[in-house]
Amino acid sequence: MAEQTPHIADRFERRGILFIVSSPSGAGKSTIARKLLEAEPELEMSVSATTRDPRPGEVDGKDYHFVSLDRFREIVAANDFLEWAHVFGHRYGTPKAPVDQALSEGRDVLFDIDWQGAQQLYQQAGGDVVRIFIFPPSMSELERRLRARRTDSDEVIAGRMARAAGEISHWDGYDYVLVNDDVEACFNHVRTILHAERLKRSRQTRLIGFVRSLIKGG
Amino acid sequence: MAEQTPHIADRFERRGILFIVSSPSGAGKSTIARKLLEAEPELEMSVSATTRDPRPGEVDGKDYHFVSLDRFREIVAANDFLEWAHVFGHRYGTPKAPVDQALSEGRDVLFDIDWQGAQQLYQQAGGDVVRIFIFPPSMSELERRLRARRTDSDEVIAGRMARAAGEISHWDGYDYVLVNDDVEACFNHVRTILHAERLKRSRQTRLIGFVRSLIKGG
Repeated sequence: MAEQTPHIADRFERRGILFIVSSPSGAGKSTIARKLLEAEPELEMSVSATTRDPRPGEVDGKDYHFVSLDRFREIVAANDFLEWAHVFGHRYGTPKAPVDQALSEGRDVLFDIDWQGAQQLYQQAGGDVVRIFIFPPSMSELERRLRARRTDSDEVIAGRMARAAGEISHWDGYDYVLVNDDVEACFNHVRTILHAERLKRSRQTRLIGFVRSLIKGG
Repeated sequence: MAEQTPHIADRFERRGILFIVSSPSGAGKSTIARKLLEAEPELEMSVSATTRDPRPGEVDGKDYHFVSLDRFREIVAANDFLEWAHVFGHRYGTPKAPVDQALSEGRDVLFDIDWQGAQQLYQQAGGDVVRIFIFPPSMSELERRLRARRTDSDEVIAGRMARAAGEISHWDGYDYVLVNDDVEACFNHVRTILHAERLKRSRQTRLIGFVRSLIKGG
């Protein structure tokens, strides 16, 4: 239903949306994010900064901004992160400037962050965020998916499973909840939520002008 | 995207939605309501009671419940309306029982009511309603549409136009706003909003059981 949104955006010039999608590792969030970015040209991905090393195939500036610990601390000190956290011994943060730029131009920003990041972002944005949590169909299915990747040791998988249970326990900090038992259906649900959220009155920054012209008889 | 919603509803048994669509007469709301009811088998229309006489073609129990003034007063006295109001010298009210029944069975209810009704319903439901306002593209287009019906005198049309401006001035009591300059696009937007609202965490009444089973490792 993407093709119907622009005429409203044109008329009502709207504020961009902070669109947060969280889920345990292995629940399919990355696939959904990729499909969403392909389908929605007005949406852009927030690229996190991290102090961890790139994995094979990861591209600096696309998957992450790979930075030194000193550089990370400078950004924190300058208050140039929207949120940041320690995860598994590394630091991850969301650079503020590209998000501010996108929002001010009426573009929506997609965040692939965990519940702590979602909470910090919610506070920073004065509550004006959209938060979606994606559940795996079951924990046994989540473990099966993690094992099918054949990239992680048993120990790493056990760590991811424990972390998944922790993530899931924070489901009540989200506005929408989905189960990913069919990636296409789940992607369509996420897209439907994005389209609906764009129609919220509170985001139509020029609506008052249009309403005034109507009431004047225009 | 209707076909993706049921699996979530099955898993998460949800509370039905009070789905309010308001707009000035002539902005196309009736057409959109009809299309929505055709497309969404889980949605049902709230049929208002009124003391006015049926117009040609109107069916008792489908378009309205046509009742006497005495009967209307009895229903008011028994507190069996969710909301009621005087409009143009007649009384209109929303019977409570069918709405309670639908919601308790997880079905959504569509209300074609004005801003006063929307406000009363919002209060009755403790805020758990979805309110959509549909704007005409312009007042001159609204007047053109009213004249094209060839059912109303100049005087009635002038009354409708004045009432339309009044309705529009209450746009800020709505959650979503749309412009109906293309009825198909507008219908798709309303449907998108319904689908997204069904995915709200706060409406998934059995979610907590599912989350517990996940955290236990199920």
